[in-house]
Amino acid sequence: MIRQSLTVDLGPRSYPIDFGNGLMDHIGQRLQSLGLRGQTAVVTNETIAPLFFARVENSLRQSGYSVLPIVLPDGEIHKNQATLQIIYDRLLEQRMERSTILLALGGGVVGDMTGYAAATFLRGVDFVQIPTTLLAQVDSSVGGKTGINHPLGKNLIGAFYQPRLVVCDLETLTTLPKREFIAGMAEVIKYGLIRDRAFFSFLQDNLDAITHLEPDPILKMLHTCCAIKGEIVSADEHESGQRALLNFGHTFGHAIEALTGYDQWLHGEAVGMGMAMAAELSHRLGWLTAAERDISVSLLQKTGLPTKAPTIETNLFQEAFSRDKKVEGGRPRFILLKGIGHAVITKDVPQQLLDDVIRDHAAS
Amino acid sequence: MIRQSLTVDLGPRSYPIDFGNGLMDHIGQRLQSLGLRGQTAVVTNETIAPLFFARVENSLRQSGYSVLPIVLPDGEIHKNQATLQIIYDRLLEQRMERSTILLALGGGVVGDMTGYAAATFLRGVDFVQIPTTLLAQVDSSVGGKTGINHPLGKNLIGAFYQPRLVVCDLETLTTLPKREFIAGMAEVIKYGLIRDRAFFSFLQDNLDAITHLEPDPILKMLHTCCAIKGEIVSADEHESGQRALLNFGHTFGHAIEALTGYDQWLHGEAVGMGMAMAAELSHRLGWLTAAERDISVSLLQKTGLPTKAPTIETNLFQEAFSRDKKVEGGRPRFILLKGIGHAVITKDVPQQLLDDVIRDHAAS
Repeated sequence: MIRQSLTVDLGPRSYPIDFGNGLMDHIGQRLQSLGLRGQTAVVTNETIAPLFFARVENSLRQSGYSVLPIVLPDGEIHKNQATLQIIYDRLLEQRMERSTILLALGGGVVGDMTGYAAATFLRGVDFVQIPTTLLAQVDSSVGGKTGINHPLGKNLIGAFYQPRLVVCDLETLTTLPKREFIAGMAEVIKYGLIRDRAFFSFLQDNLDAITHLEPDPILKMLHTCCAIKGEIVSADEHESGQRALLNFGHTFGHAIEALTGYDQWLHGEAVGMGMAMAAELSHRLGWLTAAERDISVSLLQKTGLPTKAPTIETNLFQEAFSRDKKVEGGRPRFILLKGIGHAVITKDVPQQLLDDVIRDHAAS
Repeated sequence: MIRQSLTVDLGPRSYPIDFGNGLMDHIGQRLQSLGLRGQTAVVTNETIAPLFFARVENSLRQSGYSVLPIVLPDGEIHKNQATLQIIYDRLLEQRMERSTILLALGGGVVGDMTGYAAATFLRGVDFVQIPTTLLAQVDSSVGGKTGINHPLGKNLIGAFYQPRLVVCDLETLTTLPKREFIAGMAEVIKYGLIRDRAFFSFLQDNLDAITHLEPDPILKMLHTCCAIKGEIVSADEHESGQRALLNFGHTFGHAIEALTGYDQWLHGEAVGMGMAMAAELSHRLGWLTAAERDISVSLLQKTGLPTKAPTIETNLFQEAFSRDKKVEGGRPRFILLKGIGHAVITKDVPQQLLDDVIRDHAAS
């Protein structure tokens, strides 16, 4: 088991992120090493439970923790109040106390919901993330955003609540469906585009090795992504400023997800598409050269991400933008590029340019 | 309009509590003076809306704020997920943004739910308390505890989330039903018993003037209660230590509320009863003299608080204790007195003593 670790620096709420192979078999010792005491509840879903739950449970029990399993249905459509209620009900039926440690074993949906349950159960209990998808490892498990969807939009109900520990076990990637791995790569490429040109080049050079899950480049990739995210989150925990840079591709992406009912596009796919659109918009504003746009889009394509948006009227996009929770004063906010590795936040995008980009990316 | 103010010191989350007559007519200016900008939503209930909503709305509009009214049904039975959903739905239907300021205009139920909605809507928006009951003014509006009830118990789902401002307008007490005023006095007396012998004496000496809502003693009373609560909360925001002292009377009180279905006893009445039982338990442990117990119970009685608990089997009390969210390691925690003005936290209460106290206080 290779183990690397880095710390997200948030003062009294700082926490480590561990990276390695087979870490889930040592989770009990790791909780002990952090001084976390109490009963545990492991929240997971029907897909992940048969793969990894027993290993996590064994490790916890060997270290003397009691374990309450809470198995949720799988899928984004279950990221809602009704499923959250299942978690609360199970915890309360079992009379779990304030010393409860909630572990999220799964992808972003499980992590976001478990984190939100941890933030709100008895006004807050300890929370550990064991992300099992690439997307969750490089994005949703780090930074403390938790929440559920509302019929009117994604993640509209939630809280900022930091985990005590994040464990990225590379082994979970071996069972991850190819399509989900590719979707996760969208967020990986995002870090290069918004912040780190050298990392972008590393991804260009190592795409094949990464796709084949070679441990060294995967480890470097996970570590770099989490380090960038950790640094941004440390500087702006509650997204009042530069944390918004992490939403590169997301204004378009959220609109695509919303307009297609959340069941056709994976989040990462929609974000990948959104990044291609944002790169194009950046180019048309004169901020990104044609060459830079091309290598950005090309890396997304080579990774296997979709490059045609659904065919939807531009005014419906506009409507979806206005429902995005990052809206301020009625105007959507866009994250655009002024070069690879350099993202900026802007609300000043000419309507015509925006409409053109949407139309030009629609599948014919 | 008399105005006093004190600050609850919580670093970057510090906030003022204002006390005075007719402050609600100036709420708009006050928000401006604090630099709070955005659209406002005023959450209130069907009882309070006809009394005060128009005044709050006028003041906000005069200062240039838009106002979305959200009127909830009145009563503790509505402090639940379904009512919380009404708040979310209204905010989202109106496309309220992250700059939203949620104002709670009402008693503890409105304040707790609005605060929880503010903590979780778009992962947190600004929040202002305008408590309209004595209980809310001296207790629930200060300290950042927010939440809703679950079928298995009170306040089991919630968050610590601090308001930006608390406005205690004495005028709201003039329309408060007598029974509710008396119930609020239980929490007032609590501060004297747990922390401040001189304040306890002040209450003994001024009970009549307070009951007649004479401004000077009322103002001193509110100010003292909030100062004590603010001080305790500053030292222990998330209730890991001495904040638990504020739960004096609450272990018994919560059990009484739970066992009577929350519809017979007001919270303050149950807490008052619980304090009498805790005083008796303190005495039987040899920690409180008979004379001190007697003047404690006597002040509760003179105020008009009930002094007979419902007739309920002691094992049902025990059952209710074990469901209390302050339970640790399966054992309920009691706050007891070692003299008036000096409370302590303990888990070491002999079962027999506890059962005797419960039996001896039951109505025959």
